[in-house]
Amino acid sequence: MDEKLLRSLAQDLVGGKLSVDDFLVRLKELPYLDMGDVKLDTHRALRKAFPEVVYCPGKSDDQLLRIAEVVAERDGPALFSRATEAQYAIIRRALPEAEYFPVARLVAARLPIEHPYDGVVVASAGSSDVPVAEEAAIVAIAMGCKVKRIYDVGVAGLHRLLVHIEELQSAKVVVAVAGMDGALPSVIGGIVSCPVIAVPTSVGYGASFGGLAALLTMLNACASGISVVNIDNGLGGGYCAALIARQAYREKG
Amino acid sequence: MDEKLLRSLAQDLVGGKLSVDDFLVRLKELPYLDMGDVKLDTHRALRKAFPEVVYCPGKSDDQLLRIAEVVAERDGPALFSRATEAQYAIIRRALPEAEYFPVARLVAARLPIEHPYDGVVVASAGSSDVPVAEEAAIVAIAMGCKVKRIYDVGVAGLHRLLVHIEELQSAKVVVAVAGMDGALPSVIGGIVSCPVIAVPTSVGYGASFGGLAALLTMLNACASGISVVNIDNGLGGGYCAALIARQAYREKG
Amino acid sequence: MDEKLLRSLAQDLVGGKLSVDDFLVRLKELPYLDMGDVKLDTHRALRKAFPEVVYCPGKSDDQLLRIAEVVAERDGPALFSRATEAQYAIIRRALPEAEYFPVARLVAARLPIEHPYDGVVVASAGSSDVPVAEEAAIVAIAMGCKVKRIYDVGVAGLHRLLVHIEELQSAKVVVAVAGMDGALPSVIGGIVSCPVIAVPTSVGYGASFGGLAALLTMLNACASGISVVNIDNGLGGGYCAALIARQAYREKG
Amino acid sequence: MDEKLLRSLAQDLVGGKLSVDDFLVRLKELPYLDMGDVKLDTHRALRKAFPEVVYCPGKSDDQLLRIAEVVAERDGPALFSRATEAQYAIIRRALPEAEYFPVARLVAARLPIEHPYDGVVVASAGSSDVPVAEEAAIVAIAMGCKVKRIYDVGVAGLHRLLVHIEELQSAKVVVAVAGMDGALPSVIGGIVSCPVIAVPTSVGYGASFGGLAALLTMLNACASGISVVNIDNGLGGGYCAALIARQAYREKG
Amino acid sequence: MDEKLLRSLAQDLVGGKLSVDDFLVRLKELPYLDMGDVKLDTHRALRKAFPEVVYCPGKSDDQLLRIAEVVAERDGPALFSRATEAQYAIIRRALPEAEYFPVARLVAARLPIEHPYDGVVVASAGSSDVPVAEEAAIVAIAMGCKVKRIYDVGVAGLHRLLVHIEELQSAKVVVAVAGMDGALPSVIGGIVSCPVIAVPTSVGYGASFGGLAALLTMLNACASGISVVNIDNGLGGGYCAALIARQAYREKG
Amino acid sequence: MDEKLLRSLAQDLVGGKLSVDDFLVRLKELPYLDMGDVKLDTHRALRKAFPEVVYCPGKSDDQLLRIAEVVAERDGPALFSRATEAQYAIIRRALPEAEYFPVARLVAARLPIEHPYDGVVVASAGSSDVPVAEEAAIVAIAMGCKVKRIYDVGVAGLHRLLVHIEELQSAKVVVAVAGMDGALPSVIGGIVSCPVIAVPTSVGYGASFGGLAALLTMLNACASGISVVNIDNGLGGGYCAALIARQAYREKG
Amino acid sequence: MDEKLLRSLAQDLVGGKLSVDDFLVRLKELPYLDMGDVKLDTHRALRKAFPEVVYCPGKSDDQLLRIAEVVAERDGPALFSRATEAQYAIIRRALPEAEYFPVARLVAARLPIEHPYDGVVVASAGSSDVPVAEEAAIVAIAMGCKVKRIYDVGVAGLHRLLVHIEELQSAKVVVAVAGMDGALPSVIGGIVSCPVIAVPTSVGYGASFGGLAALLTMLNACASGISVVNIDNGLGGGYCAALIARQAYREKG
Amino acid sequence: MDEKLLRSLAQDLVGGKLSVDDFLVRLKELPYLDMGDVKLDTHRALRKAFPEVVYCPGKSDDQLLRIAEVVAERDGPALFSRATEAQYAIIRRALPEAEYFPVARLVAARLPIEHPYDGVVVASAGSSDVPVAEEAAIVAIAMGCKVKRIYDVGVAGLHRLLVHIEELQSAKVVVAVAGMDGALPSVIGGIVSCPVIAVPTSVGYGASFGGLAALLTMLNACASGISVVNIDNGLGGGYCAALIARQAYREKG
Repeated sequence: MDEKLLRSLAQDLVGGKLSVDDFLVRLKELPYLDMGDVKLDTHRALRKAFPEVVYCPGKSDDQLLRIAEVVAERDGPALFSRATEAQYAIIRRALPEAEYFPVARLVAARLPIEHPYDGVVVASAGSSDVPVAEEAAIVAIAMGCKVKRIYDVGVAGLHRLLVHIEELQSAKVVVAVAGMDGALPSVIGGIVSCPVIAVPTSVGYGASFGGLAALLTMLNACASGISVVNIDNGLGGGYCAALIARQAYREKG
Repeated sequence: MDEKLLRSLAQDLVGGKLSVDDFLVRLKELPYLDMGDVKLDTHRALRKAFPEVVYCPGKSDDQLLRIAEVVAERDGPALFSRATEAQYAIIRRALPEAEYFPVARLVAARLPIEHPYDGVVVASAGSSDVPVAEEAAIVAIAMGCKVKRIYDVGVAGLHRLLVHIEELQSAKVVVAVAGMDGALPSVIGGIVSCPVIAVPTSVGYGASFGGLAALLTMLNACASGISVVNIDNGLGGGYCAALIARQAYREKG
Repeated sequence: MDEKLLRSLAQDLVGGKLSVDDFLVRLKELPYLDMGDVKLDTHRALRKAFPEVVYCPGKSDDQLLRIAEVVAERDGPALFSRATEAQYAIIRRALPEAEYFPVARLVAARLPIEHPYDGVVVASAGSSDVPVAEEAAIVAIAMGCKVKRIYDVGVAGLHRLLVHIEELQSAKVVVAVAGMDGALPSVIGGIVSCPVIAVPTSVGYGASFGGLAALLTMLNACASGISVVNIDNGLGGGYCAALIARQAYREKG
Repeated sequence: MDEKLLRSLAQDLVGGKLSVDDFLVRLKELPYLDMGDVKLDTHRALRKAFPEVVYCPGKSDDQLLRIAEVVAERDGPALFSRATEAQYAIIRRALPEAEYFPVARLVAARLPIEHPYDGVVVASAGSSDVPVAEEAAIVAIAMGCKVKRIYDVGVAGLHRLLVHIEELQSAKVVVAVAGMDGALPSVIGGIVSCPVIAVPTSVGYGASFGGLAALLTMLNACASGISVVNIDNGLGGGYCAALIARQAYREKG
Repeated sequence: MDEKLLRSLAQDLVGGKLSVDDFLVRLKELPYLDMGDVKLDTHRALRKAFPEVVYCPGKSDDQLLRIAEVVAERDGPALFSRATEAQYAIIRRALPEAEYFPVARLVAARLPIEHPYDGVVVASAGSSDVPVAEEAAIVAIAMGCKVKRIYDVGVAGLHRLLVHIEELQSAKVVVAVAGMDGALPSVIGGIVSCPVIAVPTSVGYGASFGGLAALLTMLNACASGISVVNIDNGLGGGYCAALIARQAYREKG
Repeated sequence: MDEKLLRSLAQDLVGGKLSVDDFLVRLKELPYLDMGDVKLDTHRALRKAFPEVVYCPGKSDDQLLRIAEVVAERDGPALFSRATEAQYAIIRRALPEAEYFPVARLVAARLPIEHPYDGVVVASAGSSDVPVAEEAAIVAIAMGCKVKRIYDVGVAGLHRLLVHIEELQSAKVVVAVAGMDGALPSVIGGIVSCPVIAVPTSVGYGASFGGLAALLTMLNACASGISVVNIDNGLGGGYCAALIARQAYREKG
Repeated sequence: MDEKLLRSLAQDLVGGKLSVDDFLVRLKELPYLDMGDVKLDTHRALRKAFPEVVYCPGKSDDQLLRIAEVVAERDGPALFSRATEAQYAIIRRALPEAEYFPVARLVAARLPIEHPYDGVVVASAGSSDVPVAEEAAIVAIAMGCKVKRIYDVGVAGLHRLLVHIEELQSAKVVVAVAGMDGALPSVIGGIVSCPVIAVPTSVGYGASFGGLAALLTMLNACASGISVVNIDNGLGGGYCAALIARQAYREKG
Repeated sequence: MDEKLLRSLAQDLVGGKLSVDDFLVRLKELPYLDMGDVKLDTHRALRKAFPEVVYCPGKSDDQLLRIAEVVAERDGPALFSRATEAQYAIIRRALPEAEYFPVARLVAARLPIEHPYDGVVVASAGSSDVPVAEEAAIVAIAMGCKVKRIYDVGVAGLHRLLVHIEELQSAKVVVAVAGMDGALPSVIGGIVSCPVIAVPTSVGYGASFGGLAALLTMLNACASGISVVNIDNGLGGGYCAALIARQAYREKG
């Protein structure tokens, strides 16, 4: 309920400025503000802390420019995902302060300067999974997290992973990114006690079926505490991780 | 590295109680304790707080009894999942204090008396999804969480869900359980700002393909902050949620 | 049976103009007109009201020109679907009055001026679903419907959908277009009491599997009154909706 | 908005029985009635005309009895779908007037006596598809429709279908039920000009993959005006058809 | 067994020209000719009547030229399938008499002048299926068959198919080519009493899944006497049909 | 057209026994016989030579008895497929002369005494495929064919197959039945020059996916002249083979 | 070629005991021994060392008894796979010396007493995978191998696996058996330098899709040297492993 | 444990060069060398004998050059897989001695001069499968094996395969490469007694589904001793084969 609006309408009613009928008409005219505001408050709160994310593929240069102009007029951090270098050039016309993360294919503007939420680890199995892992990492950073990256630690060379055992065990949340056999989250899930967000990638060929193999592996992970996002969804993985990392900073109970 | 053990071995070496050769033998004999202890410490810590979970289907009565006897000798909470009433009877022989949750098909023993971690909401779309939802709820409770249940709020009757908007928006984590079209997490994910763990169920027929339809819906959820566990995996959903809820009680930074 | 033809043949037989043998020959020669005419009448009737639809992809420029020339010689509205701008240029050579709807990728000619059939609402979940939604909308308009468009009202932002609750509830038929999780028809189906035609789109990536996820979601929609057409089949969705909207104008019983 | 409640609250406010604060509290306490009522009005209207449908599989005898008792206290028609004969016996304890349709596996109570909405044809391809077809037929009848059944007219014996060409062409909506190759809706869709609701069934073996083959056939039907519901979903097919048939009786524009 | 060779070896043995040991050596040296010859005779017989078929996609210009040169040195008809116009130019360098069928994407050389085997009908559902249908037709012609083409007779316009009922019923074998819903063979199979070879095509989009929908439809065809070849395999369909048509010209029993 | 009926009606019309109106009424009353007869003539011809086939699974005892009674009143051979021994007992009440083939799960009555059509070979890969192979064999026999069975000749023991090379090469059509890897038709197709009907079976486990593996193998067979029927569809395989074998006995041209 | 038989026939020919014609007849009568013998020699050699394996499911008691009687008359080891205890009782009637391995569901007779081939390790991920692992182990033992079992070492508890690192690294071949996420072979493949045979099991639920998830994981394993057999195919895994272990004992070069 | 390092640290500790604290620090600083060394020894051993393999697709020219430079500084053979001719040019800048195998798409450097391990046969079904087969062959050669190639011996022309029966039967391991129906390993597996590594290829179209058909065929192969690698994974096939061939040269027991 938009309390202020309601209160003013009620006072108008009491004060005789509105008849009962007019009061009802006004209420009915505004079902959206009414109910929606509650959510919108929340939403706005979210938006202050979290970046807006614009998905670039398939957008025309013109569309992208107009979106960037709208974003430029608002406050708060903004992210453009899966952006090409050419798209970055267009976005920069409206948002000159925007910077480009070529590996993560992200354009970012007005990112937070402080990163109060620590404990996010992003791990990737192979070097080909790094673009997805970087997308997760930058998104979490954009949401105020400190991120530790542990890349190229696939289970086929277990010793590479095990060197990082202490960093993993002190994490508050791990994003585990892997294509092909997708086994990394299973192994990490057995080592850590915090939540693991598993991100399958489409890296592989043949019976990887565009990431389906890795996705199924992760959904069937034997270790507890693992949940999964869509194939190549680094953004979703980083977003979930940041939400979890921020929990530690919520007021208790 | 188990620092204490290493230090004592090193002191024995320095003190002449161990020759260099014997020292090496001791180290070699214990690679497992050595390296494993680090993890085992963590593991043990986990086990103290979290229940052990025994998956009952396919276990013979004899196996189950022996497992229950082992569990009985240890400390800490214990859970037996997907247990039939008959299996409960067997478990109770070794664990007389065990209680049975027939809807969740869980047998539990030595559950924690206190539930310090609040903010877990378990929502289910249909009444047929309740067994999976209850499994999630009881697991989270067994891990020390306060759980609020919001059942039968599928998106086909949106008003049923919207009544609970405030409970949902004040959650620290939501477990959203749904079969058939699996749309519940998408809608909840648009309402809340906390992480949502989506649990697809095998409820449905025909083109639900044993929960595949709900699983794909959830992986493709448009709202951010949603991650997914295996079909019918209430246990995994509750486990992830409890890990997240406990974050708020970790020391910061 | 073509009664008039039969009656005339029978009269010729009775009047001695035809022998029994010749009569049988005549009947046998015409089994197609005979039986077919019934259908053809209907077909022709249909064609008068409904546009012919030519599917453009894969057609050579030459083929397309020849088809457009044939269409130009006939009466009634015509549609060319999934046409590129270049194909539009070719069609216009034979049909100079044709106009192009670039978002819907439709070329239309001789569309009806009046739109007697009201009550069609076309809703889309995301902005990427708009091309498919527009295809549905233009097809319904081409079949004489008044169409209300409600775009970008995906369930991840429920308040955007709920503002339109009255328009939705006063519809005679809703075409609900959505990719990714495909949850929009489920939610709309729970709000309205009219038929909902669900159109899955191939918008998405990874486990959307080219629209399969949205298709399955829609087939498993919990709400009643929802039926589904092929992935990206805006044309089919608009066509079904128009057929339903026209029911209200059929003579009763 | 529940206008009556709102009006009474507003009058209490005006009349001084409620302070502005109390008025706001009352509104806030009732967000559900508030917003929900709009939908509930619609819903209630629906419920008056349309039966409630209870899905029986998986329900315990006890649950079923309690549901039947609740239904018994309300008005309006009621349907129990996929009910066994044994379940019928239980339902009858609470609803002695209930009758059983064994082929359709439906239990029905308080069905409407009048069937004002004509023009529904239910066609089935094979005799094994009849249970699904009958479910569709009874549901449409329960919603006030006159239903014409045309069974066992699969395309492998085209002459059987063509005899019914006039009945099909005078329909307002056709429900076409088929398993195996699922080709019936394609052929009917080419004959009629009204909407066709295609219902795939799980009849078949081997590469029918539990109805998947028929489902895909129907989604790819070349004829226009065909939309599809879930495999074996006779209920959904009949429900959609009834909604469409009732359109002809809605006030225009 | 190559009787002549064996007999001559045995005579040499008896005649003292070969010792027992040498005889055995000779037998052992020739296991392939021995056993293979039987098959090779058949094969050679086959090759005389049937064209060699060279699959062009993925072949380099150089490879193709060399193959064409080898073919040029042999006798008998030759076919190159899925050939582009550019590949035709290369083939013609070695085989100047080769002709090109652009729709069927076939290059043919030394086709038989006489077509003694009649009774092959090739039917296609849509105009987009014609390339596959033409491939079937030309292959059957290349194998000495008379072929009747009935194109664009999809089941969505049943009257177009039924005009051809007599041609269909007098066929010795029908090749039925269809994409999308793949329903044509089902309908034809109900009309004719000869074998039907069903050829699914990849024509379609969305849930046609590259021809999978049509393939499954055909495998589940209710009519008897239908067998199916691979998606887009016009060559295989025409080949099977020609083998069947030639049966009528084999000596009996 | 049923010429005799039409002629008699026309004579009645000419003879004054029928008015033109009554004549039209009579024609109209009988659209089915009318139009259908053309097909029915063909059908009846088929039925004289070929058995009617009743699919038994899912039929109640009562239904089966009634069908058997109808069959008993007609002429010509009859087959009941996938019949249990208990169902055989029921059928025999109406058809005392019926005999049971337990391996093929077929009940047959009035099978032809003569088998003029030779050249059908039924080959099976493993002993578990024999029920499907026997179904094919009995169906072909019931349609007047001489059948040679070559069972248990899977490609894992190639020598077992090669012993039969001459029987295979003299066949007019081969039905090749195989589960698991489904490789038998590929090998046979390379040996013979006649058509091969491939029948995949559901024999296997794991990644055989209920016969899908064998089905795909057969659709992708490298050898020419192979077409495929549904999984476990011995009946369809035998039916196709018999149609082909009968071609050799059709009048030429 | 069966040299002894051929030599004796040739000597009879030379010695005048056989005419050339009779000699040819004798050769022709025995085409199978002839050509087959080459392979049979190999086969027989195999059979001496390796057990015959009879697959029990679906076999009638009578069939099983007859097979056991045939086996009893021959030499060499014999295995009956997936045998129930009841089937064991039947086999024992013909083979009283047979013993039963209930976990592996194998009946074995005349197993070799010596196990010269060492270096086979069979590892399993979970306790539910043990039946498949045991099948592999017993088969390898039956083929003369020494087998080391390392069970319940799934990657979710990595320390359990790492204790066995030396046993794994000294293996000549490892059979790695795992259901659910199927990650065990990936991890083992990164540790060892010998071949790994991966055996997916159907252990799991939901998105394990009957072992498909584990199968795909294994096919996509990042580590080199891993090859995969069918789901639940412990027999195939053990067989492959034994073949490899025996390589070390073949003569070199 | 790296014994030498440990021993030297221990001696320093005993000798007073390290305090207990410093000793612990040193141990802790090197957990990786520590634990990893055990594996690294093995790994290094592997690397000496086996080539490093760099997967080229998706690598930028710059990345590739840097990798090649690193490789150039090390010892031992190196392989770059799926390299284009352009990529070869880049690699050669750092590794001038590298050679290119265009069919196998491999770049190799410092391959072993001696090939002590004999007995590897690589067989391919069709000429389109040769690139994958060559990849397997070159990899095995790079690992020190003698390789015999038997190409274009698909089962559709069995005699072509059978000529090579002796070469196949004397192999120590066979790599069988096939697309389309994937039947080659089944047939070879029935002929040989050594292990067979089956490599499915993506050669084919339509229902080959990118190699899925061949993959499933091979997983379901009836012959024993067959294991399978990923689609188009010639590298994996050759690697497995080389590991097996080297077994014969390991010390026994």
